[in-house]
Amino acid sequence: MKIGILGTGMVGTTLGSKLVELGHEVKLGSRSAGNEKATEWVKTAGRQASQGTFADAAAFGELLLNCTSGGASLEALRMAGAGNLWGKVLVDVANPLDFSKGQPPFLLISNTDSLAEQIQAAFPEAKVVKALNTMWCGIMVNPRMLPDTHHTFLSGNDAGAKASVKELLRSFGWQEGEILDLGDITTARGTEMLLPLWVRVWGATQNGAFNFKIVS
Amino acid sequence: MKIGILGTGMVGTTLGSKLVELGHEVKLGSRSAGNEKATEWVKTAGRQASQGTFADAAAFGELLLNCTSGGASLEALRMAGAGNLWGKVLVDVANPLDFSKGQPPFLLISNTDSLAEQIQAAFPEAKVVKALNTMWCGIMVNPRMLPDTHHTFLSGNDAGAKASVKELLRSFGWQEGEILDLGDITTARGTEMLLPLWVRVWGATQNGAFNFKIVS
Repeated sequence: MKIGILGTGMVGTTLGSKLVELGHEVKLGSRSAGNEKATEWVKTAGRQASQGTFADAAAFGELLLNCTSGGASLEALRMAGAGNLWGKVLVDVANPLDFSKGQPPFLLISNTDSLAEQIQAAFPEAKVVKALNTMWCGIMVNPRMLPDTHHTFLSGNDAGAKASVKELLRSFGWQEGEILDLGDITTARGTEMLLPLWVRVWGATQNGAFNFKIVS
Repeated sequence: MKIGILGTGMVGTTLGSKLVELGHEVKLGSRSAGNEKATEWVKTAGRQASQGTFADAAAFGELLLNCTSGGASLEALRMAGAGNLWGKVLVDVANPLDFSKGQPPFLLISNTDSLAEQIQAAFPEAKVVKALNTMWCGIMVNPRMLPDTHHTFLSGNDAGAKASVKELLRSFGWQEGEILDLGDITTARGTEMLLPLWVRVWGATQNGAFNFKIVS
């Protein structure tokens, strides 16, 4: 499949490399084409990897991943262009973290709203699915690195879009029972609000290679 | 030990019954002495159980548990009286949930502050420890009812107070490795902000008898 990734940070390049490894064609988008990190990534990720602007990546992908930093996501998506998002599954991996006051970060949006909802409201013809935003990116693409089962959450209004994302997650190694569909896009408030606890667990354990499991 | 519990809801009575069962003397406090739920609880919980006002319970306890609803906690603690909290461990089990707009609830305090911090600020001579607020009360007092290990979090400024709470949790059946000290009282923001996800997981699975585990 052709996949467009917005964002050239660790999350975007990690997901991009895994997707290329799985046989997809991936275009990494950033504010301007020829971005240093994106160019570097293309060199290492191989023949099916390319880079360009946010609009280039969004136009290229049949499925899109938002891996920009949460505070910049809406602007990046506007630069990508509503027409390039039209009717497509848009996996929102970003968290609206505010590092402007240092560590630990605050949330720019929370409680009565979420980044995922703001994206869905701004681009009503995109099929936004919040996913994978509750863990370090190494675990996103290699869930079996942990010694136990654990969970990832889906939030979105479109059942078909969530089914597509579930299939993608399965291809990363996620087991059926590890993918918990929480409901519509408003449930993304819950997963985005997990980040403050994530940061504190990381601080207390000095280990970011963990994930949450629902034990019942 | 003599333990005072503020709040006569399901959390307060469940914790109270367990503490009596473990041999403690427990006084349940509410807005007015002779509260119907408290009187009923005393009848079933046995000879070491008693009830009274918030001030009665706070004066009675060497260790105190705040099990009031989060939106009413500060007022309940003011009624309990700063003098009755002086120097004592105050376990804050409450969450600042706002059900005024129906389900799902919002948080009254979040992101840049927490209920636990507001309590600590209002009663600087109490040793506030946030604990147990991330699960259904049945699991608080019977962690072994779940088929796997799972986690509870501690937040507080006083190491001795956290050690006392840890000992209490161990007596409930929590294992050493299941009790994660996140750090000072500001880390309670993280655990209080877990509630919106808790509510959504409950909604999606229709099962409240679950808890979160950190898998690493």
